Amino acid sequence: MILSVDQIAKQNLEHESIHHDNFGFLKEKLINEGIDVSKIMEQLTTFQIAIPSWALGTGGTRFGRFSIGGEPTTLLQKIEDIGLLHALTQNSGAVSLHIPWDKVDNEREIKKKAKSLGIAFDAMNSNTFQDQKGQTYSYKFGSLCNVDPAIRQQAVNHNLEVIELGKKLGSKSLTVWLADGSNFPGQNNFQRVLKNTLESLKQIYKALPEDWKLFIEYKPYEPNFYSMVIPDWGTSYMLASHLGPKAFTLVDLGHHLPNTNIEQIVATLLLQGKLGGFHFNDSKYGDDDLSVGSIKPYALFLIFNELVYGMQENEKNPYPAWMIDASHNTKDPLEDLIQSIEAIKNAYAKALLIDQQELRKAQASHDVVYAQEILKKAYETDVRPILAEVRRLQNGALNPLAVYRKLNVRLRLIEERGKDTVASGL
Amino acid sequence: MILSVDQIAKQNLEHESIHHDNFGFLKEKLINEGIDVSKIMEQLTTFQIAIPSWALGTGGTRFGRFSIGGEPTTLLQKIEDIGLLHALTQNSGAVSLHIPWDKVDNEREIKKKAKSLGIAFDAMNSNTFQDQKGQTYSYKFGSLCNVDPAIRQQAVNHNLEVIELGKKLGSKSLTVWLADGSNFPGQNNFQRVLKNTLESLKQIYKALPEDWKLFIEYKPYEPNFYSMVIPDWGTSYMLASHLGPKAFTLVDLGHHLPNTNIEQIVATLLLQGKLGGFHFNDSKYGDDDLSVGSIKPYALFLIFNELVYGMQENEKNPYPAWMIDASHNTKDPLEDLIQSIEAIKNAYAKALLIDQQELRKAQASHDVVYAQEILKKAYETDVRPILAEVRRLQNGALNPLAVYRKLNVRLRLIEERGKDTVASGL
Amino acid sequence: MILSVDQIAKQNLEHESIHHDNFGFLKEKLINEGIDVSKIMEQLTTFQIAIPSWALGTGGTRFGRFSIGGEPTTLLQKIEDIGLLHALTQNSGAVSLHIPWDKVDNEREIKKKAKSLGIAFDAMNSNTFQDQKGQTYSYKFGSLCNVDPAIRQQAVNHNLEVIELGKKLGSKSLTVWLADGSNFPGQNNFQRVLKNTLESLKQIYKALPEDWKLFIEYKPYEPNFYSMVIPDWGTSYMLASHLGPKAFTLVDLGHHLPNTNIEQIVATLLLQGKLGGFHFNDSKYGDDDLSVGSIKPYALFLIFNELVYGMQENEKNPYPAWMIDASHNTKDPLEDLIQSIEAIKNAYAKALLIDQQELRKAQASHDVVYAQEILKKAYETDVRPILAEVRRLQNGALNPLAVYRKLNVRLRLIEERGKDTVASGL
Amino acid sequence: MILSVDQIAKQNLEHESIHHDNFGFLKEKLINEGIDVSKIMEQLTTFQIAIPSWALGTGGTRFGRFSIGGEPTTLLQKIEDIGLLHALTQNSGAVSLHIPWDKVDNEREIKKKAKSLGIAFDAMNSNTFQDQKGQTYSYKFGSLCNVDPAIRQQAVNHNLEVIELGKKLGSKSLTVWLADGSNFPGQNNFQRVLKNTLESLKQIYKALPEDWKLFIEYKPYEPNFYSMVIPDWGTSYMLASHLGPKAFTLVDLGHHLPNTNIEQIVATLLLQGKLGGFHFNDSKYGDDDLSVGSIKPYALFLIFNELVYGMQENEKNPYPAWMIDASHNTKDPLEDLIQSIEAIKNAYAKALLIDQQELRKAQASHDVVYAQEILKKAYETDVRPILAEVRRLQNGALNPLAVYRKLNVRLRLIEERGKDTVASGL
Repeated sequence: MILSVDQIAKQNLEHESIHHDNFGFLKEKLINEGIDVSKIMEQLTTFQIAIPSWALGTGGTRFGRFSIGGEPTTLLQKIEDIGLLHALTQNSGAVSLHIPWDKVDNEREIKKKAKSLGIAFDAMNSNTFQDQKGQTYSYKFGSLCNVDPAIRQQAVNHNLEVIELGKKLGSKSLTVWLADGSNFPGQNNFQRVLKNTLESLKQIYKALPEDWKLFIEYKPYEPNFYSMVIPDWGTSYMLASHLGPKAFTLVDLGHHLPNTNIEQIVATLLLQGKLGGFHFNDSKYGDDDLSVGSIKPYALFLIFNELVYGMQENEKNPYPAWMIDASHNTKDPLEDLIQSIEAIKNAYAKALLIDQQELRKAQASHDVVYAQEILKKAYETDVRPILAEVRRLQNGALNPLAVYRKLNVRLRLIEERGKDTVASGL
Repeated sequence: MILSVDQIAKQNLEHESIHHDNFGFLKEKLINEGIDVSKIMEQLTTFQIAIPSWALGTGGTRFGRFSIGGEPTTLLQKIEDIGLLHALTQNSGAVSLHIPWDKVDNEREIKKKAKSLGIAFDAMNSNTFQDQKGQTYSYKFGSLCNVDPAIRQQAVNHNLEVIELGKKLGSKSLTVWLADGSNFPGQNNFQRVLKNTLESLKQIYKALPEDWKLFIEYKPYEPNFYSMVIPDWGTSYMLASHLGPKAFTLVDLGHHLPNTNIEQIVATLLLQGKLGGFHFNDSKYGDDDLSVGSIKPYALFLIFNELVYGMQENEKNPYPAWMIDASHNTKDPLEDLIQSIEAIKNAYAKALLIDQQELRKAQASHDVVYAQEILKKAYETDVRPILAEVRRLQNGALNPLAVYRKLNVRLRLIEERGKDTVASGL
Repeated sequence: MILSVDQIAKQNLEHESIHHDNFGFLKEKLINEGIDVSKIMEQLTTFQIAIPSWALGTGGTRFGRFSIGGEPTTLLQKIEDIGLLHALTQNSGAVSLHIPWDKVDNEREIKKKAKSLGIAFDAMNSNTFQDQKGQTYSYKFGSLCNVDPAIRQQAVNHNLEVIELGKKLGSKSLTVWLADGSNFPGQNNFQRVLKNTLESLKQIYKALPEDWKLFIEYKPYEPNFYSMVIPDWGTSYMLASHLGPKAFTLVDLGHHLPNTNIEQIVATLLLQGKLGGFHFNDSKYGDDDLSVGSIKPYALFLIFNELVYGMQENEKNPYPAWMIDASHNTKDPLEDLIQSIEAIKNAYAKALLIDQQELRKAQASHDVVYAQEILKKAYETDVRPILAEVRRLQNGALNPLAVYRKLNVRLRLIEERGKDTVASGL
Repeated sequence: MILSVDQIAKQNLEHESIHHDNFGFLKEKLINEGIDVSKIMEQLTTFQIAIPSWALGTGGTRFGRFSIGGEPTTLLQKIEDIGLLHALTQNSGAVSLHIPWDKVDNEREIKKKAKSLGIAFDAMNSNTFQDQKGQTYSYKFGSLCNVDPAIRQQAVNHNLEVIELGKKLGSKSLTVWLADGSNFPGQNNFQRVLKNTLESLKQIYKALPEDWKLFIEYKPYEPNFYSMVIPDWGTSYMLASHLGPKAFTLVDLGHHLPNTNIEQIVATLLLQGKLGGFHFNDSKYGDDDLSVGSIKPYALFLIFNELVYGMQENEKNPYPAWMIDASHNTKDPLEDLIQSIEAIKNAYAKALLIDQQELRKAQASHDVVYAQEILKKAYETDVRPILAEVRRLQNGALNPLAVYRKLNVRLRLIEERGKDTVASGL
């Protein structure tokens, strides 16, 4: 299923007049406050968020899974779904593949489909946290960290294959998330598994093309519940430093202990030039993988404050890779992604409104109250008209969710693909 | 120092024109969406938040305290400070006393001063977490819970005196916060100290005038770090249930374990008719006592969603008592309170914008995505013009913080009271 | 597969001499300290822990599952596995069924098998967190709490059927664990779903035979990640109080927010006569379901301290139901259960060593240091010889794990049942 | 007050016979299991734990402080108190000074007193988290991180003075704990304050004598409650790496977010050769500063497992500095320290019992169950007789706490120093 520019334009018609008023008033107000609205709109336009192939099916928990119907079962269908999203939002022009979940046996067709929908190939994701049929060794007790060199080699080889595949598709980065860890004290020797992991990563790093990046994800717990081999940003940063300039840390918002100040981690990594990528989601307890901005939107804004500052001030750090990584049992995955994209851009737009010069002054004079006022002034601004206008100018939907529902997209996908399809992946 | 209506009106002048435009546009937009703006403004007008006498001085930590100067040292001065706040914000028309920190030896003068500034006497707070000079027994090992009946009786008697004092001033409630607990396993027998506490509270409850309420606060840790006798809402609710219809639970936003869903607790207590009062503050780690809304404004909004619903739908629960309970080392306490009051009203106003009828429909049809949209629609609305208009109509300041600074209030307080005054209390 | 008394006795032979010395020395030492060792051994002998039918297969996470082979696929096989455990440990003489996972189509045979192995039928567990094939309504958005009365009724009916089945087997209690909750703010109206849940529970309670108990489990999060309908002991206790004297709270060690003082909850529930049952496991982060005692053995000891005191001092509370509820990806489930049973008895034995009289004295004189010493004295005692002797006297194994391995139990189960069997359940 | 060898020997008499039996039985048992008991006793003998000067008075919370009487008010008295501890335990032969709390105006006398009691001078602690009388600039908004270069310089200079003082006393290390941070978003620019901190530390590092070490402590929150400049081991490690080979990370057990796996951090730092020192205490919620081992003794044992392994296997990491850093309201500080020292040695002794060779084998074969058994076997061993014997051989007390009480040490200190003395410091 494909959404045409005309279909969307037609849907925009009825909202256009109110939108025109709202945007007009806001724009004038902001300009009067000295804000360069068109520059902000430019930045919002170029901001593209990758969609992982596994986010297009209903997620599950260890207690069960409730499917929604019409889920994509092939990579082609997944790319089509992202195409729908991109047509509506104009901000999801990339897909992030997960190997071996995504079978790429028709490479040319896939590239053609992606190109036709304006979808690029973002970071490749390897998978060594599950055993695949026919696999020689099990990853039950770890992959890159394993005490058994043969198992480590198998896991390294898998990553090398993923790089090869990515090269063919035009990807420029590899994300390594390791489920490696232990459930019980004594199971692992911490020093040994960390050394093993570094050695394995060195092999992978060596195989990386010159213009690629390696993203090292960290996570404190789950699926292992006593220790994870790369539990925190410190360990990821340490490994990335040992590997070299093409290795970076990847921050997933859900991969932190309770109460962690994530925006500070972001700032520290930017200062070191080691922030490689970002996985967006939201959570209340752990790696809950809820829709972005649904629980802690102010924290997301504060993170974007650091990103905006870091991208402006710090030439050392390359432009990070953005991806949504949410997955749960409750919503239509495409509706979920529409909400998540909106929440990300909302936070980004508000962060762009922050008066960085005044903030610097407030900080220089220890005026804590004023510094807070500056942040709050930006945060309290209702930026929805700006987001809608940016979409409109790119032929996207003024209100993506309304259009999605009006055009009965899910129903049509179910008609096309059936009620009981289940997306591959988690 | 007193701020006159004229002083404030004069300050409003320069902001008036822009405010007029902003409010006008917003009002029309909301009315077009079917919202009864004037009803919301009425609700915001009658919403009054008590200020505790201890919030007017700089707070401290166990590692030190950095005073600000001009801090009030007498109760009269504290009431004056609240008068300043009230003149600016029109929402802080009550004071909450802490005995024995607040010496009330000139009762008539105090009542007169409070009346002249429009300040009522909210809940009385007893204090059995510190030893006072001349006190017979120490509370080092607990007060109402103590294994020693003489110590319990001393603590009960203190509460009875606080009630007597409150009766004279016109208060109608007593808040009991117990620091009682233990630092080490074995120190307390949990069953015994809980039984003792209930017995002590029964004595206090018996002395309560018919039209008074007893608020029982809970807190999981600090200043005791292994156990607190009333650690959670469940224990407070159980005690309040055993005591009778005048006893209620009091929720302090900072008194919860990591990741607690506070809005759900609020809803549960409202359903049981046992939500008595509220202490507003914000926190990232524990009882951080930061300015309201400075860390998790969306959670505050969700809490107000429950309060708005609970106050509308549930006749069982009396109107709760509202108080700010923040205290830290960093800001001018009056500026802090201005920001906190604004944050509370901001959350309240946004919660009042929620379309409860549509929300109910979305819930009835399990439309999770739409339910979220309804909340977000209200939350993303920039309600600052409404808050300003409500203040303006009551002769308050369009921008309280700007007026406070323009009129050099802190400087003038320092001139009046000196640089090195230290407010009594923590 | 069945382990005979003779097989085990034979295995005990080689350890007997060392055991004799160790036990002899310890016994004399304790008797010299005034401890009634034989009474403690009696209490350890009568302590029986139920094994849930789902604990006999390898658990999994949402990221995957690694099977072990030889897993039981029928209820008969599960009871056989518990029989093996019981033969070795002499402390697992009960099974707890989970319906509909456990198909009971051969009731008579099952009862006969259980009886022959000394296995009783403990609490029945209903399941409304997954959809079963052919089920009319989905539990995707809740069961007993659902806004749709038809869905609630379906869930109530399922519980009534479970009671009926339990009556036939000789069970005397029903455990209700609800996964009901929400993933996003706005999804549920907290008051409404709580009221619905109470109404549903009332129907179930009404159907309960006179000599049965209803256990209400609580859990703060997972599989829902914004709110759970029964998130904490307070809510469970409130529901149990509204229901009546046959309703109780069930404590699962993994179902708490970070840093919760669980032993205090246990004491509070015992004081109220509302502690119905216990699910043992251990965890570092959340509901990790690790082997009992593998992470926080001292906390387990402190919990048993409350249980020992509560069972001795409080006639109000009935004898609680004990069950292991662990499940993970790493160990042979039977070895895991052997370790868990040992850890529970270890903690219980140490708690029985606490000098309650001296502890009471220390508490009465606020001697915190001595109170800690009393607990530590008991905790530091190496009670393993006592546990072994209790087993030996009942024809169990001196060292259950060693016997299990020596006799190649897992290998023999794989030979019997195959390599790729997967136990039903999670 | 000084405790003589004779006084202690006399007290030991009545316990000697029972001790003899217990130690004899245990020793034989361990030797039969192949354990080199005398080597373990050697290691326990040389293990010395520094006592910080501030631990000798009752700690407090922001809610109050309850003194105990007889607290030392001068550095000489503090060293005397440590002398008492050392006489009893034989494991606290060092003091760690805190400047400017500890006034050192009689350097020669102090060194003489310390020498006479067998007390060495461990790490020096600087203090920039409080303002001292007469100080030019305030540290209210940070010290080494401050945006104001003059404030940074003042803080640097203070550290240089502390180094100078330490050189005179014979110390060989400086511990920097920074309270620097922020209470509110926007208050600090994270990148700038981190850069400032590094620059300041570089100055301090430059002034460090060749044979000194710099320990950089980290802490996630308190006394700042939004961010700390050095919140985690990663930041400390990064700073230490940038500074050079004399800079190390210092781990304080209470300075972590909920659920942190501290033993893994210890292992990682050891692997990198960057574990400089250790502050022992225990906690349930945050930096609770409770007696070591009073809450999570098994976690302490697991930490010592890493330390034992790391010290044996890793030549890269220098021998760490050990210090107790506990402080609370409840116990006699000297009794608290006796319990803490005992808990540390208990954990150390048990960790020394771990069969590292078997553990390595279990890990190599992924035998998780057996790995846990190996740890548990060591942990369950009652090592108290070994600790007592080690003390006895060095003329310490078989039971230090009993001797302390029997000789009425606190009473005699009160008689000497008065009831109302308050130790300087927190």
